[in-house]
Amino acid sequence: MELTALVLNCTLKKSPEPSNTQGLIDIVTGHFDELGVKHETLRPVDYNIPFGVVSDMGEGDEWPQILEKVLAADILIIGMSIWFGVRNSVSQMVIERLDGTYNTTNDVGQYPLYNTVGGVVVTGNEDGAHACAETTLFNLSHLGCAIPPNADTYWVGDAGPGPSFIEAGGKDHPYTQKTASWMAHNVTHLARILKEHPIPPEGNTVPGWQPEDCSGHDDRMPGGHVG
Amino acid sequence: MELTALVLNCTLKKSPEPSNTQGLIDIVTGHFDELGVKHETLRPVDYNIPFGVVSDMGEGDEWPQILEKVLAADILIIGMSIWFGVRNSVSQMVIERLDGTYNTTNDVGQYPLYNTVGGVVVTGNEDGAHACAETTLFNLSHLGCAIPPNADTYWVGDAGPGPSFIEAGGKDHPYTQKTASWMAHNVTHLARILKEHPIPPEGNTVPGWQPEDCSGHDDRMPGGHVG
Amino acid sequence: MELTALVLNCTLKKSPEPSNTQGLIDIVTGHFDELGVKHETLRPVDYNIPFGVVSDMGEGDEWPQILEKVLAADILIIGMSIWFGVRNSVSQMVIERLDGTYNTTNDVGQYPLYNTVGGVVVTGNEDGAHACAETTLFNLSHLGCAIPPNADTYWVGDAGPGPSFIEAGGKDHPYTQKTASWMAHNVTHLARILKEHPIPPEGNTVPGWQPEDCSGHDDRMPGGHVG
Amino acid sequence: MELTALVLNCTLKKSPEPSNTQGLIDIVTGHFDELGVKHETLRPVDYNIPFGVVSDMGEGDEWPQILEKVLAADILIIGMSIWFGVRNSVSQMVIERLDGTYNTTNDVGQYPLYNTVGGVVVTGNEDGAHACAETTLFNLSHLGCAIPPNADTYWVGDAGPGPSFIEAGGKDHPYTQKTASWMAHNVTHLARILKEHPIPPEGNTVPGWQPEDCSGHDDRMPGGHVG
Repeated sequence: MELTALVLNCTLKKSPEPSNTQGLIDIVTGHFDELGVKHETLRPVDYNIPFGVVSDMGEGDEWPQILEKVLAADILIIGMSIWFGVRNSVSQMVIERLDGTYNTTNDVGQYPLYNTVGGVVVTGNEDGAHACAETTLFNLSHLGCAIPPNADTYWVGDAGPGPSFIEAGGKDHPYTQKTASWMAHNVTHLARILKEHPIPPEGNTVPGWQPEDCSGHDDRMPGGHVG
Repeated sequence: MELTALVLNCTLKKSPEPSNTQGLIDIVTGHFDELGVKHETLRPVDYNIPFGVVSDMGEGDEWPQILEKVLAADILIIGMSIWFGVRNSVSQMVIERLDGTYNTTNDVGQYPLYNTVGGVVVTGNEDGAHACAETTLFNLSHLGCAIPPNADTYWVGDAGPGPSFIEAGGKDHPYTQKTASWMAHNVTHLARILKEHPIPPEGNTVPGWQPEDCSGHDDRMPGGHVG
Repeated sequence: MELTALVLNCTLKKSPEPSNTQGLIDIVTGHFDELGVKHETLRPVDYNIPFGVVSDMGEGDEWPQILEKVLAADILIIGMSIWFGVRNSVSQMVIERLDGTYNTTNDVGQYPLYNTVGGVVVTGNEDGAHACAETTLFNLSHLGCAIPPNADTYWVGDAGPGPSFIEAGGKDHPYTQKTASWMAHNVTHLARILKEHPIPPEGNTVPGWQPEDCSGHDDRMPGGHVG
Repeated sequence: MELTALVLNCTLKKSPEPSNTQGLIDIVTGHFDELGVKHETLRPVDYNIPFGVVSDMGEGDEWPQILEKVLAADILIIGMSIWFGVRNSVSQMVIERLDGTYNTTNDVGQYPLYNTVGGVVVTGNEDGAHACAETTLFNLSHLGCAIPPNADTYWVGDAGPGPSFIEAGGKDHPYTQKTASWMAHNVTHLARILKEHPIPPEGNTVPGWQPEDCSGHDDRMPGGHVG
């Protein structure tokens, strides 16, 4: 059974500018390689993504091509940097655009992200990782993702301004190394379990959903329910 | 296969004072009854629980008897009221006391709450449910719990002071009814899946843990690893 | 003594699309009119503002023209909508761009926003106002603003999806009306007090700052210290 | 003009157990000494304080004697440790008990904490200081306190478990030293300004309050409005 992971590196910095968050993502995806998980990483900031809460804003909106990958993945990892103690604006924008998925379902009437497994990667020069992780994992769970134990890995320095992940040698930080490995293993374990034993569509389908009737659902959505 | 759920109603109010959070918990446990999940609800505030971060503070500490139930349950639900926009002091105290579980493992070297499924119930007269839910579900995931999709249910009124759940008729609120049902079903689904297919102890065991060696582990802990 | 207020309506919606947050801002600015406070409201989303954490990102960046108004105002109000329980991406982006002000000072060596008074306006169809307000007011205080008592006003509906401010008649909500008035009055009171009695530059100036030496400061900044 | 500061060290540890938060508080109060601010520090955990949201829970409740000091102080500093990424249970309990002050007013009809200035001191072995500070300063502002710029000081170590303030030598950390000094100076500056120029009772008094009529107010409250 092959698993696929999509990693959204929600750094503020466009490619090919060095990204500290990418440094930690690389450790996570290194574990994915060992575990046989096929993965792709992209930076939303490299795309033209208007602010909004629907899945296609029209006129050059490039979110739909990212959304298609989100919906196809077994594992969804959101990477982000901390700014002002909370998750940055790009990761918030990405979560907002995922709001559009509430208007569609999977083939059995659940939100389309059911049976996807979520995880987060956070870096910052200091304080704020818990806030980023808790908000993002909760939002993912609301959107339909399952969250395994220890689904987050982060690196932050001590109080106040200072060097970030790459410069600080965060890749050698024992706690960050441990949590990166735990997170990679646990999202993989749970994705494998849920692929073989999905959450049954009992007591958790969208009200009014009918197997043969997709009226009311947004059929523009890539990957959504198409009846 | 029988599942068991423990609900900690972290209201500030001692029994038998009416608890709004209990009102919403009752809806959740009603679903547990339908789903064949055996359940128990208790209020930590009815016990003598000193502030602290270890599993036994000695001298009349009644936390160990609650902890024993926590460790025995397949499903752990934390119920709480909102105060000042965040989770209340009793729920925070309970999470702090769970810190002690980090010093023990289950039989295969993972944190003892691995393969337990977590959920939350939140009530308040207004605003703050997301903050309560996100912090608590994240803490539970750190402690080892798995979080299914839509693992929270809450009721809050609109902006500002106003009636709470019972007085406001929150039990008839469609969104709260829906999320209570989704949450109860999803924690049950995931608990059943994980009971049959536990998260394997690969890449997620406590560093230094050995199957035959429990030195360094706190053997006073009820339900913890005992070699 | 004339006071000026700048209101940044950080809605996701470009003009002239109706904005619920603007509905509540209008109540606040109505009080400013009564109090003789000159005010301007703009929507950052109407401008070309790249993601970033410096004050001028070059190449068509229109943030500098907003920043100039921020630095000139006695009162700075951030308006925002709630998405996924927290402040939206546009308001986060605006706060991130304000990070650039840390590289400059006012004429006496303090951060340039010292003696500016901050407040917030939040709307959402449900839950999340406290999270938006607390994060934003704290960030503003870090940037140098002073925060008076009751510096926030918000409107949210009860749990779950539902109508937003305009449709729900939020303008007639007693709590929201009261807090809008309190907030408008208190930012005005404190701005007036601080204009006459500024926070003295004792124990709070940027390390290394010298009255005659602006080396090391970013002299591209509008309104910043220019020696 | 003499100013007084009350510091509530909301550590989980009873006296005389060493408190990391006290270590940082000592730096702050050292500045108060230099600035001529009279100060007192106490640990709420040393008192018998039942959970609740009114000012006197009866039967041995010792909160009223702390509340009396809170209401008498010009400056109110809340010190706290981080647990699980957020403020600890004792600080949450203290804020909850302050809810009772909403039922009283000062002599001019404002909440009793108007013209008190708030600040926070946070320590933890890692991540979470922003969350603690933002929630607490916001709560204090809701209760009536004014918040000066840079009203927080904190120390945290880098990601993961590790030594706390005392053991880690946090008292020599440049950022923490700087922010402790800024905070102490700014709460003092603003308290002095507000003592000479209080926030006028215009547009911010409790609805229904009458100078000669205290019916409806809780006259058991120490320091509250007594007509």
